[in-house]
Amino acid sequence: MIRAPASRADFEARLRRIGDERYHDKHPFHALLHGGGCTPDQVRAWVVNRYYYQSRIPMKDAAFMSRVESPALRRAWRKRIEDHDGTAEGEGGIARWLRLAEAVGLDPAYVSSAGGVLPATRFAVDAYVRFVREASLLEAVAASLTELFAPKIHAERIEGLLRHYAFADDRSLAYFQRRITEARDDVAFGLAFVLDHADTAEKQDAAAAALIFKTDVLWSQLDALHAAYVLDAGIPPGAWRPGDGLRESAA
Amino acid sequence: MIRAPASRADFEARLRRIGDERYHDKHPFHALLHGGGCTPDQVRAWVVNRYYYQSRIPMKDAAFMSRVESPALRRAWRKRIEDHDGTAEGEGGIARWLRLAEAVGLDPAYVSSAGGVLPATRFAVDAYVRFVREASLLEAVAASLTELFAPKIHAERIEGLLRHYAFADDRSLAYFQRRITEARDDVAFGLAFVLDHADTAEKQDAAAAALIFKTDVLWSQLDALHAAYVLDAGIPPGAWRPGDGLRESAA
Repeated sequence: MIRAPASRADFEARLRRIGDERYHDKHPFHALLHGGGCTPDQVRAWVVNRYYYQSRIPMKDAAFMSRVESPALRRAWRKRIEDHDGTAEGEGGIARWLRLAEAVGLDPAYVSSAGGVLPATRFAVDAYVRFVREASLLEAVAASLTELFAPKIHAERIEGLLRHYAFADDRSLAYFQRRITEARDDVAFGLAFVLDHADTAEKQDAAAAALIFKTDVLWSQLDALHAAYVLDAGIPPGAWRPGDGLRESAA
Repeated sequence: MIRAPASRADFEARLRRIGDERYHDKHPFHALLHGGGCTPDQVRAWVVNRYYYQSRIPMKDAAFMSRVESPALRRAWRKRIEDHDGTAEGEGGIARWLRLAEAVGLDPAYVSSAGGVLPATRFAVDAYVRFVREASLLEAVAASLTELFAPKIHAERIEGLLRHYAFADDRSLAYFQRRITEARDDVAFGLAFVLDHADTAEKQDAAAAALIFKTDVLWSQLDALHAAYVLDAGIPPGAWRPGDGLRESAA
């Protein structure tokens, strides 16, 4: 028996519910971070680990483009890589993240070497890049729709960090400020693509599963961070430890 | 026993010899095409098949970028995708190739659907994309060095086509004119990368083998074209036949 697909509006509501239930703005680590409860070292651990995610996003987007046959779709997607890599040294989202790293006392060269990243972070992020390389284009775009929920968390983060931490200012938080606009542009395109292409019940299920997968990718990174650096469950061998990778004036 | 790597100059000479011996400017189909010996249908068969190669180049470049961890290297490579896809509809190398298709009487929509492409063309081109996805970054860049030999063939082609074919003019040949400059820029970067990174005899061998592989990719496409449309060895089932995919005024 053939199931009818949900209406466009109902399907969009289903995707948005996934964010309500599973997006990592609900994670206790974020409550701690945004509420000013993190120690400087806990903020550093977050910056070190989240860098790995940031640094793989343009690779993920290139993996997507490597499977797209339409020049028009590649053109639309190319902006994401430009946003992260910039057009010159020191520009783009990755460079802005390294400015945040510097502001919290870390050596940008250490952070950009991806040294000290928790194994669980690597596994989760690498799983996302592999997913985009291997799943359907529809699923790959659906996985990017966590951006639907990102502007809100970026805005909350900017407000929370500015209120509670001395390192926070326009320069160090430029990454989040910029992502609010970029993510809005990207997600309008991605959401329209998913709503247009998920034209059967099976494809809607696959797109929803992809978005759930992506919320798992984000959530599990915070779980690992929280366990290692907040709950004192133990820092795995080779992972960042307080005192590692500090810039000279902070050491 | 450890072999010493060749000097930078000797290694570059080795790479250039590969072009002298194996680049597809030596293929009899190109002699026929550039000398004015192709029928309109043979030119069309070439345009249809070569389109498939063109259309996969940005996907190949994205596959490369999906494996590059350095934002600076991704930034340098991004230009290649921009060159092929352009920044708006109707711009870029792929759109310029479709103008050539139109000039030789083909429907651009037919050509861009990649209908009628010879199976051997698909296999060769897909093997190249897969190679870039799976081999080392050094080998992937080395494979791109057929561009070392491209400006010469583009210049010869422009001259030969203008002299011998009524369809040839600045508009229809814009693809080749533009590639002369683009390929020169790209190859300067790629050659420096390969000379810098092939710092052992083994890596030099791997880079040379990658370049040979790429000359095979190009040569085998012309072999298939030549056999099917010049030597009358037979057009495979499903491949383009004279009369297919013509634009209305040419039909």
